[in-house]
Order: sequence, then C-alpha cells, then structure tokens
Amino acid sequence: MKANRNYDKLEGSYLFSKIAKKVSEHQALHPDNVIIRMGIGDVTKPLCDAVVTALHGAVSEMADSKTFRGYGPEQGYGFLHQAIQAYYQKRDIALDDKEIFISDGAKSDLGNILDLLDLDNHVLVPDPVYPVYVDTNIMAGRPITFLDACEENGFLPLPDPSIQADIIYLCSPNNPTGAVYSKDQLCQWVDYALEKEAIILFDAAYESFIRDPELPRSIYEIPGAKECAIEFCSFSKTAGFTGVRCGYTIVPHTLRAGGANLNRMWTRRQTTKFNGVSYISQRAAEAVFSPEGMQQVKTTIDYYLGNAALMMEALDSLNIAYLGGANSPYIWLKCPNGMDSWSFFDLLLKQANLVVTPGAGFGKNGEGFCRLTAFNSRENTAEAMARIKAIL
Amino acid sequence: MKANRNYDKLEGSYLFSKIAKKVSEHQALHPDNVIIRMGIGDVTKPLCDAVVTALHGAVSEMADSKTFRGYGPEQGYGFLHQAIQAYYQKRDIALDDKEIFISDGAKSDLGNILDLLDLDNHVLVPDPVYPVYVDTNIMAGRPITFLDACEENGFLPLPDPSIQADIIYLCSPNNPTGAVYSKDQLCQWVDYALEKEAIILFDAAYESFIRDPELPRSIYEIPGAKECAIEFCSFSKTAGFTGVRCGYTIVPHTLRAGGANLNRMWTRRQTTKFNGVSYISQRAAEAVFSPEGMQQVKTTIDYYLGNAALMMEALDSLNIAYLGGANSPYIWLKCPNGMDSWSFFDLLLKQANLVVTPGAGFGKNGEGFCRLTAFNSRENTAEAMARIKAIL
Repeated sequence: MKANRNYDKLEGSYLFSKIAKKVSEHQALHPDNVIIRMGIGDVTKPLCDAVVTALHGAVSEMADSKTFRGYGPEQGYGFLHQAIQAYYQKRDIALDDKEIFISDGAKSDLGNILDLLDLDNHVLVPDPVYPVYVDTNIMAGRPITFLDACEENGFLPLPDPSIQADIIYLCSPNNPTGAVYSKDQLCQWVDYALEKEAIILFDAAYESFIRDPELPRSIYEIPGAKECAIEFCSFSKTAGFTGVRCGYTIVPHTLRAGGANLNRMWTRRQTTKFNGVSYISQRAAEAVFSPEGMQQVKTTIDYYLGNAALMMEALDSLNIAYLGGANSPYIWLKCPNGMDSWSFFDLLLKQANLVVTPGAGFGKNGEGFCRLTAFNSRENTAEAMARIKAIL
Repeated sequence: MKANRNYDKLEGSYLFSKIAKKVSEHQALHPDNVIIRMGIGDVTKPLCDAVVTALHGAVSEMADSKTFRGYGPEQGYGFLHQAIQAYYQKRDIALDDKEIFISDGAKSDLGNILDLLDLDNHVLVPDPVYPVYVDTNIMAGRPITFLDACEENGFLPLPDPSIQADIIYLCSPNNPTGAVYSKDQLCQWVDYALEKEAIILFDAAYESFIRDPELPRSIYEIPGAKECAIEFCSFSKTAGFTGVRCGYTIVPHTLRAGGANLNRMWTRRQTTKFNGVSYISQRAAEAVFSPEGMQQVKTTIDYYLGNAALMMEALDSLNIAYLGGANSPYIWLKCPNGMDSWSFFDLLLKQANLVVTPGAGFGKNGEGFCRLTAFNSRENTAEAMARIKAIL
C-alpha cells in the first residue's frame, strides 16, 4: 500500500499553535493579567430564539415514530432548498432546487468539490489567503499560482490576462482582509473565467455582513456567473452555526466545464460519499430564513458590526490604516511604525494583554498586517481599544 | 478547466429507481392494494429517551451564551472519545483518544479516507458489495479486483494469496448478505494484509446486531489488526441516527502504510477539509453509551432482531435457504425454484404486494438472491411472511 505522498509537501500549520504558546507563556509570567482575545474567528453569541425553537421542535419529531426522520436526501430537504431559493430570489437570482446542495459547512464542500476536477488543472489563489484553498490542492498535487493581494490593489487583486488559470478561488467579503469586491470587479473576474474556460470557486461565507447595498453578496449577481462559478455559503457566521454545522453549495446546471456536467457529477459525488446533513440542523437552518429568524440574526450581526465600528473609530483616531469592518467581521490593520506582524503581536500581548492574529500567517503579503475580529463582546472590544490607545 | 473523467466510468445506479418505478406502476394498476416494503435499509423506530433528553439539553446549551459552543475540535469532543474508549475497553481493546475521529457517518469517511491513499493502489472488494466501496474507487481511477462471495464460501470469501491487494474492504456483519466473519476468518484476513502490506478498511456499521458472543464486533479483536486496519462505525443502525448523522472512524497510531503515518495524515485531512460534527449530535451519541442509552438501544435492536426471527421462522418452514438475521438486520435469501432476482421480485410484488431488494443489484454474485431487512414493524413483518407463505 502506498500513501498519497502529496501530503509530505504540506507545510506545518503552526500559526495558531504558535499564538497559543506565546499567550500561555505570557499568562504564566503574569497570572493576574486579563488577556483579551481579538483574534477569535468563531462566533460568541448564542443561537437566536427562532433557531432554538426549530431545534427543539425537530428533536421532538425525532422522538415520535409518527414524525421520526431517518435518511434524508443527500442533497438536503426540499423545505430548506425552498427557503434558500426565496432568499436568492430577493436579489433576482433564480435557482433551480437541484442546483442547491445542503452541506455540513463551506469548508467541507470547498475541499470535496475538488474531487470533480482533474489533477492537472492550474489553481489561482490570492495571497494572503484562507489556508484551506491552498492545502486541499497541495494534497491533490495540483500546481498553484499566487496572486498578490496588497495595499496597491486594496487587497482585491484583479485578473491578469497573461496567467492561464483553471480553478480560481475568490472570497468576498474576504478572510482574512475584510475587503469586498465591487460588482464591476467581480464582472472582470467572471469575464476572465469565461475567456479562460476556468471555474471560480466563490466563498460567500461572510455575505450576511455586507450592509452596503451596492456590494454584491452572491457571484450570481454578475452576468455570466452561472456559466463559470460555484458558490459556497454557510450559516456559521450568518446565524452562529459554527457548532451546529450547516451550509450550502450552489452548482448551476449551466456551468461550462470542458463538456462535463458538474451539477450531475456533484450529485453523484454527494450521493456516493455523503449521507446528508442532520435533519435537526436543517430545520434550524430553515428557521434562519423565517421573518423572525432573519430579524434575529440581523440583530446579532449588527452587534458584531457595532464592535467593528468601535474598532474602526479607535484605529482612525490613531491614524492606523485598515481594511474591512464596515461589511465584514474582520479588520485587517497595517502594523504601525513599520513593525512586522509578529513584532506588533508581541507588543500588544506584552504591553496591552491583547491577542491578535499576525497577518504573516496567511501568506507573504500578510507580513506587516494583523487581523482583528468583531466576535468578542462589546465590553471587551471597548477595553481592547482603550488599551491600544494607551500604548500607542 | 478539465473535469475528472473517471466519473464517466461510473455505471448508473438504477437499482432503487428501477424498484421505485415497478412499485409505482403496480400501485397505479391496483390502487387499493396495501404494499409492504421489506427492502428498506433505514431504521423506523424513533430515537430513544436517553438520546432525546441529551438532544434537548444540548439545544438548550446552544441557546445560552454561558454554555454556547461554536467550532469544536474537527476530530470530535473529548467527552465522546472517552465514551467510545470505554465501549471498546469492555472488549479489552485499548484506544488512544487521538485514534478516534468522530464523523458525520461511516459513508463519508469510507469515501474520504481514500484521499490518503495513492491512486495506483490495487483495490479488493467482495461481490456482492455495498456499491460505495466500488464507486468511490472508480471516481479516483483505482484498479479494482472483485472477490467472489457465494454459496460455496457462505458469502464470506477468504484471502487468495495469489492476489496482490493494497486496499481491502471488509464489511461484517455484511451488507447486503448478513453474513458475519468469525474470529478465525478475520485472523486470516489480518495475516494476509500484514503479509501483503495492505490496508483493511473494516466497515463495522452493523456490529451492534451481533448477539453471538463468539463473533468479533471489531477488527481490533484480532491480533495485528492495529498494524493494518482502519475501522468505520456509525450510530445510524446502532441508535437510529440515520437522520442525526454521527459515526466514528478509528485510525491506529501503529498502522503500517509504506512508511507514512496515516493517523497524522487523517488528522491533517480532517482539520483541512472538515469542521467536525454538530455538537448537538455528539451529545446525542454520548448518551447512547450511558447505561440507560445502552439499554434503550438494545431494546430497539432486539425488536428488529425479533422481526428477523419471524422471517427466519417463515423461511425455514418454506425450506428457503438464507443467511443473516441472527446477528444482522439483513436476510439474504435464495430465490426459490431457481428464480432470478428480478423474477422473484416481480412475483412478490404482483402476487403478494411485497417489495424486496433484488440481490443482482449488489453485484453478479447477488443474482438469484434477494435482500430483506428487519426494519419494518412487527405487524408488517408478520403480514409479509403470511403473504409469502400463501403464495409459495
């Protein structure tokens, strides 16, 4: 038996373990210091009432032989397809129910979708980047080209016609930078993908943080996208489902893919290698789209965006440059005084008992930047900003 | 962009759609006939009380910011690892918690584990077979050899030293045949795998139906298995979790795999391509292992095995040969009077309004056999047997 030796090419993922080690060393030296974590990428608010009611209801159904549900469709239940169809229809995007696949999260499907694509396709990813896009392709042995996301292009790189790409990753609002593509910019990407006969893997996990009505929340707001793009979305950040596990993936019938029907291939992949998402989680996801659910998750996102606004105000007053915050839970700040990512990390930890995420952990263009998130409490966020102001 | 053309080699999976078409045509001709489905592969009894209580409790935790859980470990929570460790320890199998990976079901992991294995490994699968073993390898383009499971070997094929295999699939209790390997037989497989430096993918999804204390419920009851076998298990049939989605996979630290550390590779695969199982489902799975949970799921399995006993009694009285039923929810019967699978299917449908699964749908050696399951109600099972007796 031979193992897949591509795994040998993976670099260690030391970012979060290195952070944890530095934090625990600092805490050990200063046991009474109260450390505030501004780097957390997880939600902190509990599930909203509409979701909790739906969860209890689904559990009760599972307790009664008359309403018990066993295996569901691998692609998800019709009731959830319909709720998602209606959600997209609000933005005049018409989806067929067989184009919607319920997943246990965007991360799973972003990795698994690669099963459908030949191994010698050329992959294009921005730098800095969510490491999953890179590592899943290294595991399969595909060649990867990095596209510079940097201050010059507002961390929103545009297509370079001289590069032949087959698989393109775009994430907007972006993790880690918080930058959001405009419609015009996404049009350029769709045109490029159609021209190169490439496929765009569009990660829309943070779409619900967009408040600016001019900014696109789905790649399918762009003409031609249904011929070249797959969209991945999740209830994790929309409704605090990071522990509930539910998302969805849209694979249009009209995707061009060198003559292959990716919708039919994905259906076959999922029916063969997946058994669907928990019925209980799917009822919870349906409740997100109810009028009460929509209102309640908006209230929570408003809370996080309120934290982001506090941070933006503090950074403005300190003349620290940053991206994100207005339409994203992430703030990507330029380390002051020309500091590198880890030096600023160390400064904040040692002098202010604050933990952030060094941008260098997301790629070479992340050097000199740090990622803050809006997921802490209002009180901690305010205290963190006061501490930054005090030391800078 | 080029698609993975191995998908073109997949044969259509028409078995269940062909059954559905025949059934609906028959029902349309005879709208008043009451059809009983004896082919269902899904559980029908609701979740047990211990599980329902745990589910409601976990939902309530998710509703409160003090007890809310976001992202959990991709490999699953420690509380569930510990419950599984204790379950194996009862049979004197010591597992390290880092050898246990919580999954959303055996089907997902049986497919995804192939990510770790080189594409030119040689695959050995029995025939008849759970189609997932075959299709997942066709998708990846691996060569497959079929091993005859037939009347002569009691549908329990043993290793053939002249065949060089790298990846071996074993399922015991078997789907579709209900046959269960003895310890001595599994020893032969483990010895063969060690000799050939092959890996056994052991599907133990039906282990909880084993009542004979002499029969092995885990491959790790066999000396040497921790050097050559990965075990896949599920709460689907154990505790009616087909709609709840939770299972587990055991990847020992000591697996030999051409110098690679498959445990470390699987950890990397899961942390990169998976975000863990719903916290709510994991608390439900934990409750299965509580004293009340164990008693309650045993009661449900006893009920299904009671159905199987009714079927065995009827088949015995008709002198119809069969396998399974005693330690399995499946009964694999030889069609009487030399009928082929679909002829017997048609006879039962037209003359007795019964639906079974034709064995030919599981591979060439399934021809002449049909699969019945114990998952219907006691009343329907008794009525189905009375109808079979009436026509044969």
